[in-house]
Amino acid sequence: MRNLLRTAACSALVLASAVSAQEPQTVSWEILADLTTEIGPRLPGSPREAAARDWAVVRLKALGLANVRSEAFTIPGWVRGVEVAQLTAPYPHKLHITALGNSAPTPAAGISGELIYFQSLAALQAAPDSAVKGKIAFIDHAMKANQDGSGYGPSGQARRQGPSVASAKGAVAVVIRSIGTDHNRDPHTGVTNFDRGAAAIPAGAVSAPDADLIARVAAKGKPMTVALTLTGRPQAGLPSGNVVAEVPGRDPTLPAILIGCHLDSWDLGTGAIDDASGCAIITDAALRLKAQGQPLRTVRLLWAGSEELGGFGGDAFAAAHANVPHALAMESDFGADRVWRVGFRLSEANKPLADKVAAALAPLGIVRGANRANGGTDVEPMIERQKLSVIDLDQDGSRYFDLHHTPDDTLDKVDPVQLEQNVQAWLAVLGIVANEAGPISPN
Amino acid sequence: MRNLLRTAACSALVLASAVSAQEPQTVSWEILADLTTEIGPRLPGSPREAAARDWAVVRLKALGLANVRSEAFTIPGWVRGVEVAQLTAPYPHKLHITALGNSAPTPAAGISGELIYFQSLAALQAAPDSAVKGKIAFIDHAMKANQDGSGYGPSGQARRQGPSVASAKGAVAVVIRSIGTDHNRDPHTGVTNFDRGAAAIPAGAVSAPDADLIARVAAKGKPMTVALTLTGRPQAGLPSGNVVAEVPGRDPTLPAILIGCHLDSWDLGTGAIDDASGCAIITDAALRLKAQGQPLRTVRLLWAGSEELGGFGGDAFAAAHANVPHALAMESDFGADRVWRVGFRLSEANKPLADKVAAALAPLGIVRGANRANGGTDVEPMIERQKLSVIDLDQDGSRYFDLHHTPDDTLDKVDPVQLEQNVQAWLAVLGIVANEAGPISPN
Repeated sequence: MRNLLRTAACSALVLASAVSAQEPQTVSWEILADLTTEIGPRLPGSPREAAARDWAVVRLKALGLANVRSEAFTIPGWVRGVEVAQLTAPYPHKLHITALGNSAPTPAAGISGELIYFQSLAALQAAPDSAVKGKIAFIDHAMKANQDGSGYGPSGQARRQGPSVASAKGAVAVVIRSIGTDHNRDPHTGVTNFDRGAAAIPAGAVSAPDADLIARVAAKGKPMTVALTLTGRPQAGLPSGNVVAEVPGRDPTLPAILIGCHLDSWDLGTGAIDDASGCAIITDAALRLKAQGQPLRTVRLLWAGSEELGGFGGDAFAAAHANVPHALAMESDFGADRVWRVGFRLSEANKPLADKVAAALAPLGIVRGANRANGGTDVEPMIERQKLSVIDLDQDGSRYFDLHHTPDDTLDKVDPVQLEQNVQAWLAVLGIVANEAGPISPN
Repeated sequence: MRNLLRTAACSALVLASAVSAQEPQTVSWEILADLTTEIGPRLPGSPREAAARDWAVVRLKALGLANVRSEAFTIPGWVRGVEVAQLTAPYPHKLHITALGNSAPTPAAGISGELIYFQSLAALQAAPDSAVKGKIAFIDHAMKANQDGSGYGPSGQARRQGPSVASAKGAVAVVIRSIGTDHNRDPHTGVTNFDRGAAAIPAGAVSAPDADLIARVAAKGKPMTVALTLTGRPQAGLPSGNVVAEVPGRDPTLPAILIGCHLDSWDLGTGAIDDASGCAIITDAALRLKAQGQPLRTVRLLWAGSEELGGFGGDAFAAAHANVPHALAMESDFGADRVWRVGFRLSEANKPLADKVAAALAPLGIVRGANRANGGTDVEPMIERQKLSVIDLDQDGSRYFDLHHTPDDTLDKVDPVQLEQNVQAWLAVLGIVANEAGPISPN
């Protein structure tokens, strides 16, 4: 069984009751609340992502940002379909399942087959092909919640690589335990990819309680069969796009500060923590910076599209603006909980700049981390292309993977107090780096 | 908005990770785990409830209980159907909805209509019929989590009475905020009833985040329309039944001790906390009592059927055993969290008995409450008919309504340590009352 309880260290914010309260009167809250309410889910390449771009252009112009525009690109997309699964033997149970992005479709009538249990991706990798061929592979795995989100890298491999490994061994479909740290009945979606040579097969994730059930039955040594209908399917050439805006600097010849978030979201929730909150945070901070007086350097905002299916927005932005010089990049894409650490990628010559930033953040309770910041998916292509400096404002990820890519990613999960702490941290950093006259360099 | 956060006082037990652990080797855990795994959801009147009765008879006999039998009755049942809802204007959103028990069906193609917002049942009651007629009524309401579960009475009226009130005013359907204290995306089902004169109409509950969304849109004054398909429908004459078993006493002429729980469950989860845990607790306690030596009085176990649709099992038991004398009744039907208080319904002459019970429970951290115990739904009909004494072992309900009647009512939500405390509390009480030679009387 999988039943280690953490009774005391409960990290989830839970809403107490349906008691009315005033909404915060901040730009960040308004962006977050309105985007999740008026648009909601915005899957890459979908009509709702397009509606979100239109919404963003109108809103960012209204807020007084400059050079607001939508920049189109197309993506190899994926559209969700019917998703239903049933454990049919030894005991009948409905399974709460969602398809992974890039899953191949089952026939509309579904498929049935033996469900073969693997305790981990490594166990699947070690299995002979004959144990998998013609079956539906189930990949279990452990994931622990922690402040820095470091469980996502290793345990997320079950989602990223698992389907491809199962396919290469001849599985007809694959089901994984959701990549998450909650025990709600809602599964976590997310993207997978099939390696060259591994045919795309239907791939889904079940909720943690459903995975527990499968693990318990497997532990009893009982053969399992499952009926699976997942009709989501890849669709090429879908329209997507970035939204870009600016706070123009006094000296347009100085390389700009690039700040990023992503506008698209998975479609199960309303994309509140992933990543409406990021766009809300960076935009409110940029506007507060502007309100303090025109900064020296231009601050360029990237609300990227199609991050969730593979970072296509970041790639498109780096390609489209390859010749527009930037100095430093930052991104907010880890929810809306408080910033607890700042990390840098700055040269030894820029140590005074880093010291100044760290000193400005200390009153917000933010500690200084190592000099190996990496930005985020949406700004990384430009960081690599232009060899940019980076500052990371690391957010508390203790409960992020309770909600990540689930129907539970909704507005009520955002704590306005922590959201505001993020904006203040971003403002503190922008106030320094956007007014830095000297060179800013990563090494 | 509805966004009061309780960050510190998070009551939910959350499972840390998929780390294997040994299952507890207790009868209570085995009953709970096996019933939720091998049977799972067991809606009153359904084939799965019948399978659960068969399972229970086999298990209780194997555990060494006496006179184990299934006692059939029929119920006015209800069967679940398709349940889909979409906010169609002013913004398109999928709503996470479930039908309430006794909901009338929509046509298979669903219905569409204006969604009219009421902040509470009282607001709906106060509205003129003209504001409701032909529309789909939405009933919002507040519910607070608390140890004694006392929020369920008042806020649950939105579910129990709301549909009937809406119907009487001419609503074509009704949607309520789930009766619950969580903020997961899963709605809470539960039974409603239509008063004489109020036609049954389609009735559903949306999850708290969906209700928040509706409340936010309503607060903006925007007209809302909703498309609703709820095909669940009443079905008369469904087969149900109780399972009864005994630990025979040394003196069969003494009135027995009746201990109850319910075997049926709502069908969204696996009925772990509602109420497999109750049956697990009372049965383990009865078996430990037996292991200590034959008690003076017979202890009669009632695993009632069809509690969730209206306490039909308790009614059937009271009618079938009207002439079998009982002295005192107890029930476990409030989850699996620790017992924190003991309540009595005992005569002044039985004060020494109550004192003895309270003293035996004190080492388990259980405080003494008032002398107004009421048993539970499954034993109440017999309490009323035979004027029985009652002892309540009140469980901590702080997180009960996070899970109650949702897909999240699964095995992983049960804390084995607290489950065991329940069994020990029950054993302490049974050891006293089942060996009481003198009369036991409620007043």
